[in-house]
Amino acid sequence: MRDESAPASEAGAEEPVPARTGPGRWQRSRARVERVALELFDRHGVEAVTVEQICAAAGIGPATFYRHFGTKDGVLFAYRPLFLEAIRTAVSRAPAGTASDQVEAALLDFAEYLEAHADELAMRDRIVAANPVLLPRTLLVQREWEAELTRALAAARGVPDTDPTVWWNAALGLVVIRAAFRRWRGEAAATLRGCVRESLAEARATIATRAAPGTTPAHPDPATPPALEDERAREGHDGDG
Amino acid sequence: MRDESAPASEAGAEEPVPARTGPGRWQRSRARVERVALELFDRHGVEAVTVEQICAAAGIGPATFYRHFGTKDGVLFAYRPLFLEAIRTAVSRAPAGTASDQVEAALLDFAEYLEAHADELAMRDRIVAANPVLLPRTLLVQREWEAELTRALAAARGVPDTDPTVWWNAALGLVVIRAAFRRWRGEAAATLRGCVRESLAEARATIATRAAPGTTPAHPDPATPPALEDERAREGHDGDG
Repeated sequence: MRDESAPASEAGAEEPVPARTGPGRWQRSRARVERVALELFDRHGVEAVTVEQICAAAGIGPATFYRHFGTKDGVLFAYRPLFLEAIRTAVSRAPAGTASDQVEAALLDFAEYLEAHADELAMRDRIVAANPVLLPRTLLVQREWEAELTRALAAARGVPDTDPTVWWNAALGLVVIRAAFRRWRGEAAATLRGCVRESLAEARATIATRAAPGTTPAHPDPATPPALEDERAREGHDGDG
Repeated sequence: MRDESAPASEAGAEEPVPARTGPGRWQRSRARVERVALELFDRHGVEAVTVEQICAAAGIGPATFYRHFGTKDGVLFAYRPLFLEAIRTAVSRAPAGTASDQVEAALLDFAEYLEAHADELAMRDRIVAANPVLLPRTLLVQREWEAELTRALAAARGVPDTDPTVWWNAALGLVVIRAAFRRWRGEAAATLRGCVRESLAEARATIATRAAPGTTPAHPDPATPPALEDERAREGHDGDG
């Protein structure tokens, strides 16, 4: 069981190292192990695949696997910290503006990151769809994204995490991501970035039809079902979807 | 183990029965078992409580418990079908109007139902907070509420479940419920209904500050962080919070 043939990341982290032995090397190794595991889960189902099979296919020892991923499910959700980092990076790159402007820029930037991982995302989708027991944990990941977006946005704006404008923008941003994912899966030719733009427009159009008490209604006749205003919603779409 | 002293609902369901022996009686019995279980979980922690202890405290046999609740966790989430029914009822009572008018009326009606179960909701909150392992399942329940609201709204409007206006309104409605719950927990004197009203106003104010490309911005200067427009947001609040 103690086959430690895999490169150990932590050992080399303290010293200045060339590319082949530092943390960068384990990051690549780690990404390869995740990819191998996803492919096995996708082909045979999570239940049918053993840690030993993943280790054999990835050329690492079980001790290395357990140290880095904890459990078999752990390798499936090992992407979490990298995705959270991508959210922080996206917010830090967003130009100054209103909270909603910043969220919009961050969502489009994050969408680009996600597209760079489109194959793995599609595999994870199929794996979770085939194993409903994994759905609750997937929902937890989405909630983590929302919390990270809230924190990063609050930090960028110099306000507390509890600021309601920041929280609302982050929560609505996550609904936009979910809607964009659905749209992306349904439209083979679309880019996720384009789907985020369309979902943002849809969210705005939906809210615009709300007749807020005490304010001027955005639609003249509350008995008329709101059209989705598809034309207006697509105005801001730059055609990359 | 075969202590079947508890009233069996199914047995009496076929014949016209007086109040003491029909399904209504088991519904009350079932609510009592749930209440007893919640109290034990809240006092001692879910891990420390056994099914035998719940059965002893509720005066039912383990076979009855397992038949109706499946597992120990099952009794904690046994409220799900009743809450989904409350969502359907709330939508069916909402007057005709735009999808957002209907969701707003349904959310306020559902909030009233939830307030009638305030004690149990507070206990469940404490139990989940003390057992983070239960959080993913709680998120799944919120997703079920969203799906049920989508279905009920689509049925009420005679459109397919996939209608984007219906989906958006349901998804945004669930964010409003989450925000209202937070607010309710934070403000001892508030009613959930009042919190739903304030959260709806906050959602509107947040979206109104978005500068939609190609449309007139709702705020003159995109570099100015949006105030939450507290005064306007509270205009429609009728003071029951």
